[in-house]
Amino acid sequence: MERSRAERLISNAKGLDAVVILNGGAPFLDSAFWYLTELTGGSFEGSFAVVRKDGGLDVIVSTLEAETAESGKGNLRVYNTREERDDHLREALKGAGNVGFNIHNAPYSMVNHVKKTVKGINVKDASSAISSTVSVKDSKEIELTREACRISSQAAKEIPDMLSEGMTEKEAAFKIDMRMRELGGEGNAFDTISAFGPNSSKPHHSPTDRRLAKGDAALFDFGTKYGRYCSDMTRTVFLSRPPEILERAYEVVLEAQTAGIERYMDGAKAKDADIAAREVIDRTEFKGKFIHSFGHGIGMDIHQDISVSPRSDHILKEGNIVSAEPGIYIPGVGGIRIEDTCLITKNGCERLTDFDRKMTIV
Amino acid sequence: MERSRAERLISNAKGLDAVVILNGGAPFLDSAFWYLTELTGGSFEGSFAVVRKDGGLDVIVSTLEAETAESGKGNLRVYNTREERDDHLREALKGAGNVGFNIHNAPYSMVNHVKKTVKGINVKDASSAISSTVSVKDSKEIELTREACRISSQAAKEIPDMLSEGMTEKEAAFKIDMRMRELGGEGNAFDTISAFGPNSSKPHHSPTDRRLAKGDAALFDFGTKYGRYCSDMTRTVFLSRPPEILERAYEVVLEAQTAGIERYMDGAKAKDADIAAREVIDRTEFKGKFIHSFGHGIGMDIHQDISVSPRSDHILKEGNIVSAEPGIYIPGVGGIRIEDTCLITKNGCERLTDFDRKMTIV
Repeated sequence: MERSRAERLISNAKGLDAVVILNGGAPFLDSAFWYLTELTGGSFEGSFAVVRKDGGLDVIVSTLEAETAESGKGNLRVYNTREERDDHLREALKGAGNVGFNIHNAPYSMVNHVKKTVKGINVKDASSAISSTVSVKDSKEIELTREACRISSQAAKEIPDMLSEGMTEKEAAFKIDMRMRELGGEGNAFDTISAFGPNSSKPHHSPTDRRLAKGDAALFDFGTKYGRYCSDMTRTVFLSRPPEILERAYEVVLEAQTAGIERYMDGAKAKDADIAAREVIDRTEFKGKFIHSFGHGIGMDIHQDISVSPRSDHILKEGNIVSAEPGIYIPGVGGIRIEDTCLITKNGCERLTDFDRKMTIV
Repeated sequence: MERSRAERLISNAKGLDAVVILNGGAPFLDSAFWYLTELTGGSFEGSFAVVRKDGGLDVIVSTLEAETAESGKGNLRVYNTREERDDHLREALKGAGNVGFNIHNAPYSMVNHVKKTVKGINVKDASSAISSTVSVKDSKEIELTREACRISSQAAKEIPDMLSEGMTEKEAAFKIDMRMRELGGEGNAFDTISAFGPNSSKPHHSPTDRRLAKGDAALFDFGTKYGRYCSDMTRTVFLSRPPEILERAYEVVLEAQTAGIERYMDGAKAKDADIAAREVIDRTEFKGKFIHSFGHGIGMDIHQDISVSPRSDHILKEGNIVSAEPGIYIPGVGGIRIEDTCLITKNGCERLTDFDRKMTIV
């Protein structure tokens, strides 16, 4: 029989007697809670998932969400009061000494509360064990991500028809968001970036009332959720011919993305993809204008665990899902980014957002 | 001159030399960062806002978002590497001994990182000081919330026209979400709850493919963001006449909400609103069926700081914005909830989501 997710996690957590996943108040919710329980809904503020040494899973939730939690994995422990919650914690962690926490995703106060509540435990960092578990997707997770990517790719295909001179960045973002929902998406994976003209030179621009003008680069970075899993893609199109420098930048970014994606395969160093892409850009007039990493892991969180940067020490594994997103940013003029969501396979990678990347002039 | 938000915060932070607000990776972002900087956009992962004893504000951001951050408040400190970021932290906290953190909203690892990086500081809990600062809204914040509430109230008004027998919970949620965006909302304040028939007895139900049937209660809990501020409201309508017990429950919930809202005013104990509403429900056949709190604070976060529960020790203040949301939940049959977003005023409160609450049979 296939091992459960909890069993995979605890076997990755060397030297730990238990791993505690905890949720604060929204938005301080840890997706690892949903990963382990395989629940798809619920808010589960103040809930805990405890993985024990034997791979058993205890799920501690308030009465308010007991009914919702019943459809998930794990032994349900329901509380009415904080005192009852703490009793459940003590029971679930009975006999545990070294207890791992997802320290980057757990509120300072709550980790300390568990430490105080359950006598005799040592707080350990389980974040690497959690990362290496959740970053290798199982077939169910891949299918959900594939569907999220199909939806955003279809929306990408329709972008040229959505655009018209004089429309605002906000209006364009709205159209993309709506279309993803109509196509079956369950809500944005993140706030859509819609940036026209010089605004596209800011990698994390928030949509404004700026209107689309002839010669603008129009950059859209968007994704949807499906069954809690994210897609992430970026396309940059032009409204009529842009300044020549942007057309050149487009060709360079496309070449850089291809060079990076060629390095994506099981067993490869993640940083080699970043380096390959960066080399393509840095040997042109755009040297130094690629000011962020080549990629990041994608899962229930839009930025998950894996870093694809020059400093990354991650070794890619079959089942990793990562973005490939080089860009060139020219302040005052505009920016180009092309991004796809990629599934690492035995011999290479599959672009799950498989929509065309050729230069598009609307 | 009116005091800045940073000045208000540090004056509430008795005994602290500085307060640090920090952002982890999304979604572990602290809205207090946007509160202090008055920025409206950006993702600002790994950014810090440091309020000094004199009320000065240092904002530490990566190069990636420097351009976006320029439009905000504070002295900008831009970093390229983690080492530079840590140098900025040390400079901003120079001479500080007792440093407050928003311990419920800050990742365990990052607080510990600051503690290790800046020698000689003591980690203190600044969460109450932050809560009492952000929970008293200024006029700019009230106007943004008012607009968010106007948008969701208008959508609420149109719900009866959106519904038809046989539509799914997901379809109804989609229509409400779309309509709020069309009306100018900047995205959901939280995942819309859309629950038909027996599903409405789960307070935190996630929309499914269940179809709307005659006699169903249809419960919708939804809100939008506007300028980062949230609205929050719930309406429950019926598709043709429901079981008599649900009509009775509706009348009781409405009476309970009114009783609670009557206690909302500057200087009142928050718990008295909960107690007043709960008494209305508990003197009927529905005793014990109101299984959550009467309300919570609302701001940039949908659940912010203030708790309106029997155990709350909060004293309401002019400028607080809180929900009023009693409910009755009957497993297997259905649930009723009515919720409004309320602004506490000198002599009472203003229902910012002012749409009608009378029973609606579609």
